[in-house]
Amino acid sequence: MFPYKTSLKLNKNLKEPLYLQLANQFILLIREGNLPPGTKLVGSRTLADLLQVHRKTVVACYEELLLQGWVESIPKKGTFVNKSLPLAQKTTLVGTFKTSKKKSSGFNFYDNNCLSEKKTEKRKGVIYINDGTSDTRLTPTEEIARIYRKIASKKSAYTFLDYSSTHGNVKLREVLAVYLNNSRGLKISKENILITRGSQMGMWLSSQLLLKEGDIIVVGETNYSSADITFQYQKAQIKRVSVDENGLVIDQIEKLCKKQSIKAVYVTSHHHHPTTVTLSAERRIHLLNLAQKHNFAIIEDDYDYDFNYNHAPILPLASHDSSGNVIYIGSVCKTVAPVFRVGYLVASEDFVNEAAKLRGYVDRQGDALLELTFAEFIKSGDLDRHIRKLMKIYLQRRDLFCELLKNKLGDYFQFEVPKGGMAIWVHLNKQYSWSEVAKEASKHQLEVGEWQRYDLVNKKHNAIRIGFASYNDEEIKLLIEKLKQTFKSIKKVPIKHF
Amino acid sequence: MFPYKTSLKLNKNLKEPLYLQLANQFILLIREGNLPPGTKLVGSRTLADLLQVHRKTVVACYEELLLQGWVESIPKKGTFVNKSLPLAQKTTLVGTFKTSKKKSSGFNFYDNNCLSEKKTEKRKGVIYINDGTSDTRLTPTEEIARIYRKIASKKSAYTFLDYSSTHGNVKLREVLAVYLNNSRGLKISKENILITRGSQMGMWLSSQLLLKEGDIIVVGETNYSSADITFQYQKAQIKRVSVDENGLVIDQIEKLCKKQSIKAVYVTSHHHHPTTVTLSAERRIHLLNLAQKHNFAIIEDDYDYDFNYNHAPILPLASHDSSGNVIYIGSVCKTVAPVFRVGYLVASEDFVNEAAKLRGYVDRQGDALLELTFAEFIKSGDLDRHIRKLMKIYLQRRDLFCELLKNKLGDYFQFEVPKGGMAIWVHLNKQYSWSEVAKEASKHQLEVGEWQRYDLVNKKHNAIRIGFASYNDEEIKLLIEKLKQTFKSIKKVPIKHF
Repeated sequence: MFPYKTSLKLNKNLKEPLYLQLANQFILLIREGNLPPGTKLVGSRTLADLLQVHRKTVVACYEELLLQGWVESIPKKGTFVNKSLPLAQKTTLVGTFKTSKKKSSGFNFYDNNCLSEKKTEKRKGVIYINDGTSDTRLTPTEEIARIYRKIASKKSAYTFLDYSSTHGNVKLREVLAVYLNNSRGLKISKENILITRGSQMGMWLSSQLLLKEGDIIVVGETNYSSADITFQYQKAQIKRVSVDENGLVIDQIEKLCKKQSIKAVYVTSHHHHPTTVTLSAERRIHLLNLAQKHNFAIIEDDYDYDFNYNHAPILPLASHDSSGNVIYIGSVCKTVAPVFRVGYLVASEDFVNEAAKLRGYVDRQGDALLELTFAEFIKSGDLDRHIRKLMKIYLQRRDLFCELLKNKLGDYFQFEVPKGGMAIWVHLNKQYSWSEVAKEASKHQLEVGEWQRYDLVNKKHNAIRIGFASYNDEEIKLLIEKLKQTFKSIKKVPIKHF
Repeated sequence: MFPYKTSLKLNKNLKEPLYLQLANQFILLIREGNLPPGTKLVGSRTLADLLQVHRKTVVACYEELLLQGWVESIPKKGTFVNKSLPLAQKTTLVGTFKTSKKKSSGFNFYDNNCLSEKKTEKRKGVIYINDGTSDTRLTPTEEIARIYRKIASKKSAYTFLDYSSTHGNVKLREVLAVYLNNSRGLKISKENILITRGSQMGMWLSSQLLLKEGDIIVVGETNYSSADITFQYQKAQIKRVSVDENGLVIDQIEKLCKKQSIKAVYVTSHHHHPTTVTLSAERRIHLLNLAQKHNFAIIEDDYDYDFNYNHAPILPLASHDSSGNVIYIGSVCKTVAPVFRVGYLVASEDFVNEAAKLRGYVDRQGDALLELTFAEFIKSGDLDRHIRKLMKIYLQRRDLFCELLKNKLGDYFQFEVPKGGMAIWVHLNKQYSWSEVAKEASKHQLEVGEWQRYDLVNKKHNAIRIGFASYNDEEIKLLIEKLKQTFKSIKKVPIKHF
């Protein structure tokens, strides 16, 4: 007889009823060839005895197997494994019903070499250099959660629980239109807004709609690596123009336009990523004029509009866009916290509608409860108050960080104090390389991060972005100290000229 | 003199400081050619008088303009609009600084004809026929919001606020691995799970990784239209096989495999969408064997696993997948509420990792607070209790709906009582067409919805899916009544044979 007793294991502590546990184990035995088609199953009384369960349990199990089509019942003969079931594949080992899901797939899929893994592993006691993230300890999470619960507890809340618009919650779109018009000089209405899951989704959707294989997109010679990768995924042709102290060199874009038809320009005009420079007024107008003349899109990623220390925020290109050439992308992720995936894509109505259609097949829709929470958070002025609070703190951190970097590590680093944002663009003395610094720093519990991503075209500029906003004063001092120790242990005499 | 007084409007009630309001309006005037390069600006004292503001406000405004590069200051001569600014494009009308964002874009983008808009508009007093959505009034929203707030209010909450794994929150992945193993007979660990924003994202990511132009994917002759569209977006070749009372006809897939190399099969094995039939045991094994032999992927969309009225849920194909051929997709959207965008993609580790990499560029990451909320909701047994509660209610609704449909509308409709799920596959008497029924129903405040999507290949099967779960008893009676009135006003004598 088949070794039922050893092959069938019942666990009375599980929530799953015994008859179902039994049925599912039978199915596995059948599926994997241990009980081949045509096999007669042991009588219910015998099996109940073997397993020490009530006979009803076995009867219920056999009925379930019958219903599902795994066995057939032949009157006066008994219960048999369904003869019409195909034999299990030979490669399936007999008795392997405890195998776990494989590591590798049984099919081929496309390997997108351009994609890089986003590492977020954090070990205790280690300081991680980031490219300019916010300090999540300052997030008003309790306040946000309070609003969330209030909204979810309203009697009318159920109306927001169902499938809803792929454009995002209409109330947040209305509130955002007013907020962006007031704070950034836009002239939009809710029809120009698609609520996204943060800037990255705005970029993804734009890239999908604008670019196909071979299409040209212009970016800076150094550029935000996630943007590059998003465009590369579409197999777009990336053309790079220089970045100087006034941002992207627009004259080079003008020259490109004379030779080729370009589809889009990606720009972080407020503070260029990674170098932190601001696109000058002159170049802003020049770029807009070019876009209008040559009908290309400007993807304006305004990731750090809220943070300016030396003067008021500079209005985005989108505020001057009377011809519908700018796709303006932003989010609350840098300002409030990355976990709150609420962002926006602002553009002409036709583009917004097409992007909304597409997002219906990407993630179907956003989270209306969270979107309503942010509508209230913005409308009440809480967001603005939060920004003002952060501004003071981050300004102080920038100053401390830059001061220490200059005084303690001036021999190794060269940098300009950034006028805004949350990061410094730091050039390393040419005698060193970030690869050796990163390796050595690691020994001092300091992780430099993916320094490679700042030099995707191998220009050897030897610079990386170092965020200052996420560390408190103590942490800043510790980070600088660890960097100092790192250089000490590299034991080179720094040369004075960079 | 330039009409400063009429062109510059200050509003003391705005939060934006006056000097900034002024500066931003100046920028618009400059940008749009009203104040061309080289124009001398009026003196600060004069402007202060004109606008009746303090002179300091105007001075601060001019300083801001200087800092941003819009104007230049020439000692002893005054303040001038920066001469090096390019002229604004001619097409920009003078004086249009109140224009709103355009309806159409100033650039071209790809029009993906395959995408269809997801309509979610709801008018009061109208009953909408859906394809099987849940009743959001039964959602334990307060309980979920309570857990959410509890998690967000913990001291350690800030650790979840930062950028995190693109695979999803690790705790939810662990809880789900156990939950899916126990409830669905899977044999997985957290490494096999990617947390998505619902089933649609699982489908999107799979489609991106599996299919390129011309690749073959097999689906049922009638199929879930969003799946079709997702594959069409990738320009895949869709091959259709018949669907009978036992689900997809796998013999037809076997024949296809002999002729061509197929990349994937999309299957809703538990209850075929839209017809609600269950894939038989025999065909399950056959399909798995074929996948193993021909190395194709099975995308198993298990959208309604939780709802079975006649017998226990049937284990998914994924529970028998020892060779890594199945990509198993599910979510809590149908079970709890669509607003909670939490789903999962279960597959071999290599595929999960590649999908996680890709999702990093789609929406960067999920919502860790919501994911933790669902980890607790599942682990505490709340989800299971909720499902048991729903099961009783939906079973009763199914029976009422089917009974009324048969007794009151038996002349017009033919259908099988579905064994599970939340919808009935309803064939219309051939004398009628859904287009005329939909048109007429609309007059009775009943919206039939997009009946076209059930017959994408124009097979004229004259059937649509009618959801029963989202209506209470009164609403079911009303819906049936409205359908009856609809047929009455169409005024045809139904023929008896379908």
